Amino acid sequence: MRPDSQFERLRVVLVNTRNPLNIGAAARAMGNFGFLYLRVVNPFELAFREARSAVGAAPLLAQAEEFKSLEEAVADCSLVVGTTALSHRDPQHKVRDLQQGARLIRKRLSAGRVALLFGSEKRGLSNEDFSHCHWLLRIPTREEHRSMNLGQAVAVCLYELAREVKSGPSAEKVTLSTAGDLERLTSLLLDALQVSGYLKSKASGAAKMRSAAPADEKIRRLVRRLNLSAEDAELLLGMLRQIQWKMKT
Amino acid sequence: MRPDSQFERLRVVLVNTRNPLNIGAAARAMGNFGFLYLRVVNPFELAFREARSAVGAAPLLAQAEEFKSLEEAVADCSLVVGTTALSHRDPQHKVRDLQQGARLIRKRLSAGRVALLFGSEKRGLSNEDFSHCHWLLRIPTREEHRSMNLGQAVAVCLYELAREVKSGPSAEKVTLSTAGDLERLTSLLLDALQVSGYLKSKASGAAKMRSAAPADEKIRRLVRRLNLSAEDAELLLGMLRQIQWKMKT
Repeated sequence: MRPDSQFERLRVVLVNTRNPLNIGAAARAMGNFGFLYLRVVNPFELAFREARSAVGAAPLLAQAEEFKSLEEAVADCSLVVGTTALSHRDPQHKVRDLQQGARLIRKRLSAGRVALLFGSEKRGLSNEDFSHCHWLLRIPTREEHRSMNLGQAVAVCLYELAREVKSGPSAEKVTLSTAGDLERLTSLLLDALQVSGYLKSKASGAAKMRSAAPADEKIRRLVRRLNLSAEDAELLLGMLRQIQWKMKT
Repeated sequence: MRPDSQFERLRVVLVNTRNPLNIGAAARAMGNFGFLYLRVVNPFELAFREARSAVGAAPLLAQAEEFKSLEEAVADCSLVVGTTALSHRDPQHKVRDLQQGARLIRKRLSAGRVALLFGSEKRGLSNEDFSHCHWLLRIPTREEHRSMNLGQAVAVCLYELAREVKSGPSAEKVTLSTAGDLERLTSLLLDALQVSGYLKSKASGAAKMRSAAPADEKIRRLVRRLNLSAEDAELLLGMLRQIQWKMKT
């Protein structure tokens, strides 16, 4: 099953939202991460109407479904998850951290619809709302500053849900310079440093360097530390050639 | 080292932000995830004042630092990362996905300050802004709906940065060069290239460079790609000064 078709089974449910900007922000984050089905429960009528008619309101917002009660809004879902800022507000529910919870939700999306609930800006979800949930999801915010902005909470949850499962760094497309390039660069730089007087001569070249190690070894190491691409090495070679020519004229 | 002390080294930098609500939202997400140092570059004066005086504005917002230029805002940072919604806007920069990039930023926070830049609501970061960056960070949004709300983008990035601090390789011992060092190196190199004739003049300087992009932006990017330690930057500065002196005599 393609992830997309799994994503189609998620219902983002906003309960008692007050601010049209937050409804719009939630919809925008949904569009960003590929979750297209929004439900609103008992929003301030005006807020919902405003959000829907906002300039650039996504089609997603236009086709959002409105419900009078949470019960109706989650009736066709096989898993109902509430979000909360607090860890122990409702000890009757299992609270999962976002990372672990998202993994579970992804798994369940392959089997059926999942509702993810967000409460009002001021009070979050009520105990009554929680009673419709199978478990709760908590974004790991700091204890000193737990409560998140609604639109940001939606964005972070959906990001985690969509977060690519594969780990590890991706392939770099850059072609790295060869040892040959680097050695040419080293020689040219050494020569330029001698011509300029930075290095006194091949023999006593270590004079201005900070240790007794032969200057050309230090320069060779320095050039390797730069981790140059083939293209950048070529660029630097060109610059050095020109500078060297100038110094010798 | 406690994660918190690493978090203290991050600077969230908002460039040309227009909307006070977005400055406030960025600050709120910072508080949620424990990043306390905000910098703003050239915000709309009114927007910044409004954000600062908003009810419940965090102390974080009160002590945010204001800068006239991006250059000044990142001068004391050893890694500068720009955020972008597009994957191929600027092929000269390495673009990392959030997950991989966050891992790298965490690692670099153990060695020095890191600046994470967010552009304006309408246009994001400019090419000039990008030229100050070592690499770019992209939040993996859908192709059909790439562009994120500013406050939500900040929240998602900081969430990922704060996510699972435990794992990942340990601290680097190298002290990295600051953006200030790199800018000095860039100026010196540009000057040397002009004196040598590699760049014709400030105006027609792009002659030998590969594209029409201004020469100093290309050189600035090249210098950032070198990933210099403080020590190596110092070494190169010394070399360039000597070479320049020689060319002018």
